[in-house]
Amino acid sequence: MAKIEKISPLAPNYFPDFPEIGGVELSTVAAGLKYKGRDDVLCVHFPMGATVAGVLTRSKTASAPVRQCRVNLATGKQARAMLVNSGNSNAFTGKAGDLAMMSTISALGTALGCEKEEIYVSSTGVIGVVLDDKKINAHMGDLVDNLSPRNWEIAARAILTTDTFAKGAVRRAKIRGVDVKINGFAKGSGMIAPDMATMLAYVFTDADLPQNIFQAILADATDKSFNAITVDSDTSTSDTLLAFATGAAHVGHDINDMNDPALAEFRAAFLDLLLDLAHQVVRDGEGATKFIEIKVTGAENNPAAKVIALSIANSPLVKTAIAGEDANWGRIVMAVGKAGEAADRDSIVITIGGQKVTQKGMAVSGYDEAACTKHLQGQNIIITVDVGIASGEATVWTCDLTHGYIDINADYRS
Amino acid sequence: MAKIEKISPLAPNYFPDFPEIGGVELSTVAAGLKYKGRDDVLCVHFPMGATVAGVLTRSKTASAPVRQCRVNLATGKQARAMLVNSGNSNAFTGKAGDLAMMSTISALGTALGCEKEEIYVSSTGVIGVVLDDKKINAHMGDLVDNLSPRNWEIAARAILTTDTFAKGAVRRAKIRGVDVKINGFAKGSGMIAPDMATMLAYVFTDADLPQNIFQAILADATDKSFNAITVDSDTSTSDTLLAFATGAAHVGHDINDMNDPALAEFRAAFLDLLLDLAHQVVRDGEGATKFIEIKVTGAENNPAAKVIALSIANSPLVKTAIAGEDANWGRIVMAVGKAGEAADRDSIVITIGGQKVTQKGMAVSGYDEAACTKHLQGQNIIITVDVGIASGEATVWTCDLTHGYIDINADYRS
Repeated sequence: MAKIEKISPLAPNYFPDFPEIGGVELSTVAAGLKYKGRDDVLCVHFPMGATVAGVLTRSKTASAPVRQCRVNLATGKQARAMLVNSGNSNAFTGKAGDLAMMSTISALGTALGCEKEEIYVSSTGVIGVVLDDKKINAHMGDLVDNLSPRNWEIAARAILTTDTFAKGAVRRAKIRGVDVKINGFAKGSGMIAPDMATMLAYVFTDADLPQNIFQAILADATDKSFNAITVDSDTSTSDTLLAFATGAAHVGHDINDMNDPALAEFRAAFLDLLLDLAHQVVRDGEGATKFIEIKVTGAENNPAAKVIALSIANSPLVKTAIAGEDANWGRIVMAVGKAGEAADRDSIVITIGGQKVTQKGMAVSGYDEAACTKHLQGQNIIITVDVGIASGEATVWTCDLTHGYIDINADYRS
Repeated sequence: MAKIEKISPLAPNYFPDFPEIGGVELSTVAAGLKYKGRDDVLCVHFPMGATVAGVLTRSKTASAPVRQCRVNLATGKQARAMLVNSGNSNAFTGKAGDLAMMSTISALGTALGCEKEEIYVSSTGVIGVVLDDKKINAHMGDLVDNLSPRNWEIAARAILTTDTFAKGAVRRAKIRGVDVKINGFAKGSGMIAPDMATMLAYVFTDADLPQNIFQAILADATDKSFNAITVDSDTSTSDTLLAFATGAAHVGHDINDMNDPALAEFRAAFLDLLLDLAHQVVRDGEGATKFIEIKVTGAENNPAAKVIALSIANSPLVKTAIAGEDANWGRIVMAVGKAGEAADRDSIVITIGGQKVTQKGMAVSGYDEAACTKHLQGQNIIITVDVGIASGEATVWTCDLTHGYIDINADYRS
């Protein structure tokens, strides 16, 4: 395994303070699945139950835990617990992997007194090695004993793999005058692309929402956040985003429409938290030295704009040019062209760092290339492209492609 | 520009001997468009005319020359000449670029006495800089004076940009007992992906074929060759494959079906030549140290197999693992999963270098990882994946992703 000792240069300065959320308890243990000297198993307990919403990888080779989450979500039942391990994804491990997972679910169910379909599971790490359920089950007593409403940061750390920093975000909002809290944490730094764009992310709130509305809010916010980021266009077999609502703030179930104005502030805060986490995942992109925002406007419609934006964001030639701090807008034109969506060559307007570099189908005569280069020498790069067809728009985020990515991935057995 | 002094380790040992082809004359000059001390303009003359078939980039921001080729092909007329320059792609240069191109076409038309729709053009190199037509037109006399049926190798060299070696291939076949020759050359090493998978490739034959049959043969062979290779998943704005048939071997026009058995040997030789050129393009992939063949079987149908094969071939995680000589089959599973085509997790069989590494949804117990690693330490890597659904199959070719790719592209203004 490559030695990753340096924290990403794009990391935030601190991990936020997490408030307690009524009805959520967390604990971690060091089961020694792969890593030494750190916790690698997380348990979250919802003593009063929690409404669950989820978005899972669309991979056709999804891991056993992802398949189990799908089964649970389909029941519509409340969640009672979640079990996450790092160091082993238990993906592509056949029937033996399924059995190992079920063994841990049974053990936790016995320890907490709940049914297996009330327990959500995630695993992240190496593909193709059967999960060692005995190592996890040996610590079930500790996991239950350690449960506390304060263990947020150690929870966020227990799920990391190649990540160079823990990723957390907190928000607050009012629903009909009642304060609700939203806490979230995530992990992921490679194999990052829609859909889903992170390997694991969990969000917790004390809002009280019907399951169908909570799922709709999650799906909508995911499209604008985790499904709008890409590091290397690769999609994991384990991508999981789960959101749990305990209802401890007692808002009441009287909201039956996700577009009810009473939810506007909550939805904005929820999306903002997901964006924060998704951006942190990009900022920990393997080898990343620059955080890149790409906004496409003027497309045939919003989905077309997203296709174009992702074509730019996933282009190795664009990503290496930005790594080299080269204002190579020709490669952006190339990426617009290969996207396959309508674009009017003679109307495309590209800006880099706010400066217009192309219009009327060619470079802007005498544009200030030095100013472009200076912008590219910074850590936060902003590129906009108007393709001149209609009014569709989308924004996506990515990072540059550097020697660091090769170093990490030509070596690490993931 | 990065200094590329080393020839790709995957280059063939020699450039083949090209026979003369009746009705084809070639010349080159050094116009100084970008490169110093080398020829950068190629002229091909067909004094008796030639039937033309073509496959062009599907980019929505295609260059002026690509657009012009489309116009010419639509006329169905015979070609009389071709003009190619390297160092400037004249792509995304607006109306000024169109005018510069037309100026060179007019000058060549006057010099050779032919119409503009009989002249095919290609440009390759930097995007976004208007072609300096005066530099080319100043050499029209030399281009006409230098025409010779023997100038194949210097022609292949004049069209190169970041390529580290010239790419040529020759084949022979019989059509109804008559010997016909096929010569081809190509350039391209980055921005390589379907469709098209090379920036420029030209094929010449003295066979006499109706245009519609020649076009059908080219399209079919392109699907199995240039559209089955990928270096970095990026598609150029200038990709052009043109094939010219002079008819000098006098085979006769009495073949009206591309599936006529009389064409079987010719079609096989034609495909073999295109494969040879396409593989040479991959072998010159930027930073490439390994040539990788990926064969997918057992898919729902042939197109689905190709989608899965390209998903594997384009995965940065698979490509970096191979660069690192790591038998990381988990990433192959990931790439199968993200392709979105049907795959049965528990039936997937992956082989590396002929050795089975997975079956029944997990690793083959006790497979010889050392033998896999030894295979990956070689230059020619063969991976097969059976996805266990039906009988669709496809083979694609790619190269590994290395520090060399980053070196070249974080620096080169293409």
